[in-house]
Amino acid sequence: MSVPRRGFPDQEFAERTRAAQALMAQEGLSALLLTTEPEIRYYTGFLTRFWESPTRPWFVVLPSVGKPIAVIPSIGAHLMEQTWVSDIRTWQSPDYQDDGIGLLAETLKEVTPKDGRIGLADQMESHVRMPLGGLRALEACLNPRLMQGDSTITRRLRMVKSEAEIAKTAAAARIANRAFDRVPEIAALGVPLSDVFRAFQAICLHEGADWVPYLAGAAGQGGYDDVISPADDTPLANGAVLMLDTGLVWDGYFCDFDRNFALSGPTEQVRYAHERLIDATQAGFEVARPGATIADVFHAMNAVCNPDTKGGGAGRLGHGLGMQLTEWPSIIAKDHTILEPGMVLTLEPTVAVRKDRILVHEENVVIRETGAEYLSERQGHQIRVL
Amino acid sequence: MSVPRRGFPDQEFAERTRAAQALMAQEGLSALLLTTEPEIRYYTGFLTRFWESPTRPWFVVLPSVGKPIAVIPSIGAHLMEQTWVSDIRTWQSPDYQDDGIGLLAETLKEVTPKDGRIGLADQMESHVRMPLGGLRALEACLNPRLMQGDSTITRRLRMVKSEAEIAKTAAAARIANRAFDRVPEIAALGVPLSDVFRAFQAICLHEGADWVPYLAGAAGQGGYDDVISPADDTPLANGAVLMLDTGLVWDGYFCDFDRNFALSGPTEQVRYAHERLIDATQAGFEVARPGATIADVFHAMNAVCNPDTKGGGAGRLGHGLGMQLTEWPSIIAKDHTILEPGMVLTLEPTVAVRKDRILVHEENVVIRETGAEYLSERQGHQIRVL
Repeated sequence: MSVPRRGFPDQEFAERTRAAQALMAQEGLSALLLTTEPEIRYYTGFLTRFWESPTRPWFVVLPSVGKPIAVIPSIGAHLMEQTWVSDIRTWQSPDYQDDGIGLLAETLKEVTPKDGRIGLADQMESHVRMPLGGLRALEACLNPRLMQGDSTITRRLRMVKSEAEIAKTAAAARIANRAFDRVPEIAALGVPLSDVFRAFQAICLHEGADWVPYLAGAAGQGGYDDVISPADDTPLANGAVLMLDTGLVWDGYFCDFDRNFALSGPTEQVRYAHERLIDATQAGFEVARPGATIADVFHAMNAVCNPDTKGGGAGRLGHGLGMQLTEWPSIIAKDHTILEPGMVLTLEPTVAVRKDRILVHEENVVIRETGAEYLSERQGHQIRVL
Repeated sequence: MSVPRRGFPDQEFAERTRAAQALMAQEGLSALLLTTEPEIRYYTGFLTRFWESPTRPWFVVLPSVGKPIAVIPSIGAHLMEQTWVSDIRTWQSPDYQDDGIGLLAETLKEVTPKDGRIGLADQMESHVRMPLGGLRALEACLNPRLMQGDSTITRRLRMVKSEAEIAKTAAAARIANRAFDRVPEIAALGVPLSDVFRAFQAICLHEGADWVPYLAGAAGQGGYDDVISPADDTPLANGAVLMLDTGLVWDGYFCDFDRNFALSGPTEQVRYAHERLIDATQAGFEVARPGATIADVFHAMNAVCNPDTKGGGAGRLGHGLGMQLTEWPSIIAKDHTILEPGMVLTLEPTVAVRKDRILVHEENVVIRETGAEYLSERQGHQIRVL
């Protein structure tokens, strides 16, 4: 399949903005204040790795009508001018006296009546990316206008992806598919795990990733006990299972899935555990269709990978995916989100091989009218062997 | 030079904690609440790329005496147990009813008297990494205890690095030195800039980077107009100047510097501009010694790279560096921080080559008793030619 176009037509940002404005009207909000990378990019298309620097705050104001207004450090003006945003207000940051708060307050006052309310993301998975002191000063400046939660407006919109968004995650997943197929080139008995991590990231880049923000993994005898530790220099040993889980990015969109590799012939236990993971994934895949709930997907998977618990005992078994490595919703028993076409999810079952030893498997899917569709290349029952 | 040891002895975390506690006593704070990756890592050693996932909040409480207390999602318990922290309290996150707030409030109440005050980073370059709704709920739970700013305690401590920290940034810089020397292998006339970006990141990994969180750069005729845009597919052209600026990580510490490359013989203008950048860097280097101020360093550089402005006209000309790509302080005219041994800085002058065309140069230095010392391999006057 060919590589899709980079970027989005302006039309897509205009539609996202109008959809948010319709929800703002329902919720009685005069404006949204956006402060984080994905929120700002979602409505503007502003894509840069410069967010790695925590120094400067960035703001976008979504008024009740019209285009978003950028209130940003002058260093970002040139890039913001390339987007569909036309009202770009800048200050020279860092400014130790006033790092954008005055300009932001002025902008918000322009678009918010005195009895108006301004929405700011305040729910799970969100944070406010500006100094707390700045937020408190802003609230004082805006008085009597109220700042309150954004009623999950941006989260709700982002949960259902457009075809152009899905194509980007699919492109990222194809890159990761090819990278996983090349693991035998870099991983073998005696190679330190840290070398495998480094070389795998390089392969992801060679296969077309723009960058590799996330790589987790582990290697241990007959399974592993942790999937968030950094790699150490321990050499891969006979009988180990190596797991690599990558969140690589193409044009600002993530894939997020893993593969397991047995060093030499897997034990019966490992072989069976891996089969169960694949069965659990497939069970989730089969119920993941419009009208089903996230809880349905959880229970379908949990019944296979964790049959001894009656729901809710395990951790989450997957999550949303898109501009961020993990997004709303979480595949847990208490999530009753109803699936809709366009949602992109990871299905991520875990099985206990024995005490303190687990295996984790993960695939990426998109929900279509007729059911789920794999974005990652579906892994077969048999664990890969190095 | 050999690669340093990974990690830190527990002693170093104990010293950081005691230093914070001494400042807390001075400032009248009963506890600090830490919510961001670098704050938590600074006091605990908890190092993971899992922060890429925005789903779960993570908390560490620093009481007025004793070790930090971790209040974290259960998925992180195993890794936190490897650190010097012994009091680890967990909940199964994500929890849609209470994602850690109850457990955190209980912990903070244990270590804070009713008339006590809890410090939370609230100043420039900081943010609170938890949902705003969660913060507001926490404040309500803790009443009558007050949450207030942390009086920059953690920022002040982090600004002066230990020898072990400096050794890690130095290791990262050596990796980047080698990677920049290999740019001729991957960049030449006709190669798309996006391919150069991908291949350069792979070289950084091959040379020993654990990961490459940041790569910026640009290529343009006789200079560039922007240093934060993502790479596009435009092929490198005759007369272009290519700039690559990388923030790569070794054992959790960044280097951050760039190199410029002329495609074919540089014009007189470019040659001269590059020489001025090197002179400006060296001018900053020479005044960067204990007792001088950041403003002194700014003015020394600005007088060379931007002689027409009388201070303050240009943007910042460098910044602190360590666990983050950019840290306090900013090298600007209004920063009067007094330099101390152990501070690690980037010196980053910019010159205008002509209208809408700039060149940027950057080196990394550490302040020693006797003056500055380069951590990056000092670039000579002549621009590199491809």
